Amino acid sequence: MALIVQKYGGTSVGDIERIRNVARRVIDTYNRGNDVVVVVSAMSGETDRLVNLSKQMTPSPSEREYDVLVATGEQVSVALLSMALHSQGVDAESFLGYQVKIVTDSAFSKARIMKIETDELLRALRAKKIAIVAGFQGVDENNNITTLGRGGSDTTGVALAAALKADVCEIYTDVEGVYTTDPNICPEARKLEKISYDEMLEMASLGAKVLQTRSVEFAKKYGVKVMVLSSFTSKPGTLVTKEDEDMEQVVVSGVTYNKNESKITVIRVPDKPGIAYTVFGPISEANIVVDMIIQNASAEGYTDLTFTVPKTDLHKALAIVKKTAGEIGAKDVTVHENIAKVSIVGVGMKSHAGVASKMFKVLSDEGVNIMMISTSEIKISCAIDSKYTELAVRVLHNAFGLDKLGVTEE
Amino acid sequence: MALIVQKYGGTSVGDIERIRNVARRVIDTYNRGNDVVVVVSAMSGETDRLVNLSKQMTPSPSEREYDVLVATGEQVSVALLSMALHSQGVDAESFLGYQVKIVTDSAFSKARIMKIETDELLRALRAKKIAIVAGFQGVDENNNITTLGRGGSDTTGVALAAALKADVCEIYTDVEGVYTTDPNICPEARKLEKISYDEMLEMASLGAKVLQTRSVEFAKKYGVKVMVLSSFTSKPGTLVTKEDEDMEQVVVSGVTYNKNESKITVIRVPDKPGIAYTVFGPISEANIVVDMIIQNASAEGYTDLTFTVPKTDLHKALAIVKKTAGEIGAKDVTVHENIAKVSIVGVGMKSHAGVASKMFKVLSDEGVNIMMISTSEIKISCAIDSKYTELAVRVLHNAFGLDKLGVTEE
Repeated sequence: MALIVQKYGGTSVGDIERIRNVARRVIDTYNRGNDVVVVVSAMSGETDRLVNLSKQMTPSPSEREYDVLVATGEQVSVALLSMALHSQGVDAESFLGYQVKIVTDSAFSKARIMKIETDELLRALRAKKIAIVAGFQGVDENNNITTLGRGGSDTTGVALAAALKADVCEIYTDVEGVYTTDPNICPEARKLEKISYDEMLEMASLGAKVLQTRSVEFAKKYGVKVMVLSSFTSKPGTLVTKEDEDMEQVVVSGVTYNKNESKITVIRVPDKPGIAYTVFGPISEANIVVDMIIQNASAEGYTDLTFTVPKTDLHKALAIVKKTAGEIGAKDVTVHENIAKVSIVGVGMKSHAGVASKMFKVLSDEGVNIMMISTSEIKISCAIDSKYTELAVRVLHNAFGLDKLGVTEE
Repeated sequence: MALIVQKYGGTSVGDIERIRNVARRVIDTYNRGNDVVVVVSAMSGETDRLVNLSKQMTPSPSEREYDVLVATGEQVSVALLSMALHSQGVDAESFLGYQVKIVTDSAFSKARIMKIETDELLRALRAKKIAIVAGFQGVDENNNITTLGRGGSDTTGVALAAALKADVCEIYTDVEGVYTTDPNICPEARKLEKISYDEMLEMASLGAKVLQTRSVEFAKKYGVKVMVLSSFTSKPGTLVTKEDEDMEQVVVSGVTYNKNESKITVIRVPDKPGIAYTVFGPISEANIVVDMIIQNASAEGYTDLTFTVPKTDLHKALAIVKKTAGEIGAKDVTVHENIAKVSIVGVGMKSHAGVASKMFKVLSDEGVNIMMISTSEIKISCAIDSKYTELAVRVLHNAFGLDKLGVTEE
């Protein structure tokens, strides 16, 4: 008997029949004698519908009210899944963020979990109920509803698993695990049997879409074993766990991309100490994550400063940057709205040379212009025009032999 | 300067443009120096959508989870209205039932308000914010979400007005006030300038649809002045207030109907003391409201027991009644699913004779069979086959001269 946290994503609960299917899986786990806590996302399409209502109302909604709005998506899901379990004869109880409660900071729409109270969940488990928790949402210290940002339900799942000291956190999604790259744009993509937290972190933050970054950070920090698998099959998934020797044999484990970036360039910035802080301080205060940054070589005391931000934050970032640019006497601010970041990831990179130059050559051979480069110990990323995304992913996947590597396929 | 509670119904907030319109009305009231608390319903169609999801899942959902589901409708509305106010430059804050908080009993989907804490609302008003409260929902003592039943937002509005000692509770809807009957089926219907709590209570409980019964009870109990008016015009509405001399001049103030009734007959019930309690006790315990009751004259120690229940509760009521019928040895249980109750209402009835017999003659002249009759001091109701509803309403409206009475029309 174990304590298992299962998280089901939007497509897994996409309609009534799929929710019934999730209920059957949950009951199956429960009937094997396990305590089960289930985290659900909003039904697929629902969050978009809500976001669209907000957009119709105003381009820049109150962030507090935005969270009140979008949190309803998960509330609908927990109620329907609990009903499905009841109608299949199993006792279940739904929990919203404030009922658990999942206490977060007050950074609306990007809140961070501060503390999870487990009393109410444990009371339900002791009563042999299945606990159904709304993903993505929490409550701040003043009882305001907060949300954790897109994909935040993964974080809810892993954070609950950590708080409850669960044996495993199973993340059910519409793919069968973590792939060497997106199978939708590269049919040769292969499923990985396991992957290290660090690789997964790079994969997730770079857009592999299977797991939200923060959930992997949580998992790494608290040593939560995470299994990524499909709710539509019974095939084994991908285990996200600690790094081991097998993993180090492989130079590149995956190719990832993120098309939702925009590039901002501040032209003719006076090149003096403190200027980076002056530019990036206010952006960071607005809770916008700046990703890649390049500062050109200085000429005559001036430089150009280029960086990327999530496309969804472009509007807000631009308003801030234009204000700063005026204050520091920069010449202009230009924007390239459609940027993709394509990356190769692998713990094996640490001990292999020439990986970066091979990547640059592969892209260059295809005529893809590299606008920016950033690297870490286990990944290399290139910003390119987003229209080349699919091409770049496919040629890199081939060039690094990912279709032939020692990865599982059933 | 006054404290005004405004409640806007589903059609008033039916789409983004209408919510903007509501925001303009609210700001108008606020700019005249008033403190404003706004209660909103779910966008029209939204509650139906949610109820339909529940029905697709199971015919008899867990009532706790049903409330978790349908409460999301009003949550969407408060968020969007707050956004609309912010985007028009006025500070507003949304409140859900648990944030106010509006404490109810635990009768899910038909909860009653026990207590309203006003501290948080008063804090918002002191900060010169407009407080936007989700109608229809509350929270019980164990932090479970509860709902007040269909139309419950009216009750939220009036109860808040009572708790806050507001000067008036304005109920905005898609009609311009309280009419002598439903203008949709009787074009000669006329708007009333004012109406007594008791008449309104009869009108509301009999299906006039403009105000929920419980909200009028609340208003009467606490002396809350209620103004019913349209959010689509600036015409004066109908004031619901204490009875006065003008009102008593009129014999019949309105004709109302309710098509959502079903009739259950228990055949050959042993006619002995305590039998009514045996039949109706369990129904009442299931929170089902029995309306009209007829017991036929006893023959050979047996009688037939006929009564009506809301059509939505028919399923549940029938299961209970069949069980009881078996236990007490009744012969059979029969059902007439589609019953309408047509009623005439007026405080003037107290001092006028012959009103009932006139009603029966008018219906009989049209060949409408009267199945059941019930009366109070100020109303007479007849249960008929629901296919005759419109006909019955029109002939009664004419027969009692309601198209010609001293009622306002602009």
